[in-house]
Amino acid sequence: MQDFNFYAPTQVVFGKNSESKVGELVKKYGGTKVLLHFGGQSAIKSGLLAEVEANLKAAGVDFVKLGGVVPNPRVSKVREGIDICKREGIDFLLAVGGGSVIDSCKAISAGRYFEGDVWDLYLKKARATKYMPIGCILTIPAAGSEMSDGSVITNEEGWLKKDYCVNEFRCKFAIMNPERTYSLPAWQTACGVTDIMMHTMERYFSKDDDMEVTDSIAESVLRTAKSQVIKVLANPTDYNSRAQIMWAGSLAHNDLTGCGTSGDWATHNLEHELSGMFDVSHGAGLAALWGSWARYTRNENISRFVRFAVNVMGVEQDFHSAEETAEAGIKAMEAFYHSIGMPTSIKELIGRDITNAEIAEMADKCSNYGQNTVGCLKKLSREDMVNIYKMAR
Amino acid sequence: MQDFNFYAPTQVVFGKNSESKVGELVKKYGGTKVLLHFGGQSAIKSGLLAEVEANLKAAGVDFVKLGGVVPNPRVSKVREGIDICKREGIDFLLAVGGGSVIDSCKAISAGRYFEGDVWDLYLKKARATKYMPIGCILTIPAAGSEMSDGSVITNEEGWLKKDYCVNEFRCKFAIMNPERTYSLPAWQTACGVTDIMMHTMERYFSKDDDMEVTDSIAESVLRTAKSQVIKVLANPTDYNSRAQIMWAGSLAHNDLTGCGTSGDWATHNLEHELSGMFDVSHGAGLAALWGSWARYTRNENISRFVRFAVNVMGVEQDFHSAEETAEAGIKAMEAFYHSIGMPTSIKELIGRDITNAEIAEMADKCSNYGQNTVGCLKKLSREDMVNIYKMAR
Repeated sequence: MQDFNFYAPTQVVFGKNSESKVGELVKKYGGTKVLLHFGGQSAIKSGLLAEVEANLKAAGVDFVKLGGVVPNPRVSKVREGIDICKREGIDFLLAVGGGSVIDSCKAISAGRYFEGDVWDLYLKKARATKYMPIGCILTIPAAGSEMSDGSVITNEEGWLKKDYCVNEFRCKFAIMNPERTYSLPAWQTACGVTDIMMHTMERYFSKDDDMEVTDSIAESVLRTAKSQVIKVLANPTDYNSRAQIMWAGSLAHNDLTGCGTSGDWATHNLEHELSGMFDVSHGAGLAALWGSWARYTRNENISRFVRFAVNVMGVEQDFHSAEETAEAGIKAMEAFYHSIGMPTSIKELIGRDITNAEIAEMADKCSNYGQNTVGCLKKLSREDMVNIYKMAR
Repeated sequence: MQDFNFYAPTQVVFGKNSESKVGELVKKYGGTKVLLHFGGQSAIKSGLLAEVEANLKAAGVDFVKLGGVVPNPRVSKVREGIDICKREGIDFLLAVGGGSVIDSCKAISAGRYFEGDVWDLYLKKARATKYMPIGCILTIPAAGSEMSDGSVITNEEGWLKKDYCVNEFRCKFAIMNPERTYSLPAWQTACGVTDIMMHTMERYFSKDDDMEVTDSIAESVLRTAKSQVIKVLANPTDYNSRAQIMWAGSLAHNDLTGCGTSGDWATHNLEHELSGMFDVSHGAGLAALWGSWARYTRNENISRFVRFAVNVMGVEQDFHSAEETAEAGIKAMEAFYHSIGMPTSIKELIGRDITNAEIAEMADKCSNYGQNTVGCLKKLSREDMVNIYKMAR
């Protein structure tokens, strides 16, 4: 097993009516003037934004609103947020939404005191030294950004999608009320669960076979997400199942499922190029690629794929053939993706055949023109990336 | 499921040679002058204390030493620590040891700025309003105090054992090097694992059957602790197994295994009287009582005991009889306790028959002379306590 750090300082306030504590929590963590950051119309239509505003006012917390964050959040919106924070003397960032809104807040947090352009941080040209505190009211369980140290931002110039990770990005508090996820459409629910499971699987499919407690917890998170999404798609207002998924989403990405193992993250890297180029949902992009990645790499640690097949997918083990069992597990996962409406190929994802030129461009970007590899179970070269994209086409 | 708060801000630094970061971590969390708190001779003999002293010196951190903490840590030692902190201008508490040393640090933390006597806090007569920061180097995986909000202290006058819980008790950092647990004797290793499992079981045996992700994670922690202790007892320097147990110990008591469920804690309460009266090891006391508590309460939620039997103890389910399956699970747990050298009765624990007068005295104290109940799965009256102690005699 690997040495590890585990740091999950976010105060999670989970349950019915938990939004009513937002003003009190902002003040507890030192906020006096808040940037209230959100996405589209759903936060307004559901009445959540009005509730939050009233709660902040009652707590004597001043705020400025900035909506319009889109999926694959844009650096242009981040720059707008930074300008507002400087101009208005904002001292606390409050995200109301899902991972895109939280990630946008994180970028604003890093850019607020940084002298250069915030995008340079995501290009790893520099590190920020001072950050603004962030809190969130989560409405979409998926990205796990509410407890993670990471933020992924898209630059419209060139459609580059890049991440920046730092412990200062961990939210001070995360308010989670499963009822607020009742209105999520089936497609978005399924994309979210795919992302949740993938955050766990990226950590699970490692070369380190010897962290039993972590592996077993990862399997618990995977089995829960898999079983509960079926219930939620059948009954969108099933509180307990919505709650399981919501909490699983945080546990999948607060590093708990990676303690002592070295994560892979190749599928995420390959997908970032896909959603960067086609602006598709991240979760759906992951589903479209995973099976091909798994078949391409499974012999690097076949026993891990057998374990996944048996302990997560409930496949009956073929004791004569690890390969057969592993393949049955991958097939079962693809059947599960289809059962919740997810694609398992790029064609299903984007609705047409992808061209060789597009694949070449994605592989170029993902490998930084052949200079970098991605993944850990198997270090993927540019050629490997092309092969996997072609398998997934 | 229940609403819940989850707050685990402790920075965990886990792995080989992690002690070498202690000076840096103390400074990171604002310490300039440390009370270096420890137990008996083992920290000195192992060389750990000298290493820590050298590391603090190299980091320019001043310190004062206070050793002599005993299992079931005493309030007299806590008062001594408080006096030193006041006299010497200490601003950071560093525990080197197991749960007793950390709990003693926590009591010092609460008592340092409190105007009255620290014991009044444990008697719940008052709440402290200011606390000292605490860090720890864990050498005994058992109590889970390194990530918990609780502290249990024993008052030699009347041998009362009381707890005090507050989020300010959560350590700023916890350094965990599994190699430092190699020298733990078999008995202490087994007592520790019993405590770890019991922290999980107290949360698991609830009336709330509907937090699948939490229950499944709890079962992961239980299965891991159970399987790895067998390996460690056979090979005390098995790094991976020692590491599993060490990390399981933190996860068992940082509230992760109780998110959304209401804990029971009756066995802990019943045991506190036992170790308060006989000064026995807490873990062994828990093992001596658990089977009797389980048989006394199992019909309050028989399906939970069936699930435990099947998912944790690997018992084959008798589909005709939940009672038979539940009983087989309890018997399997008792057999496991015996296999690691733990007692399953008070006689095995204290080496003689306990008297009715002693049982009456424990039940009096545990129920505050009939005024309080303990437990949640079944609220135990004074009479119930007497019945369970008698079943366990």
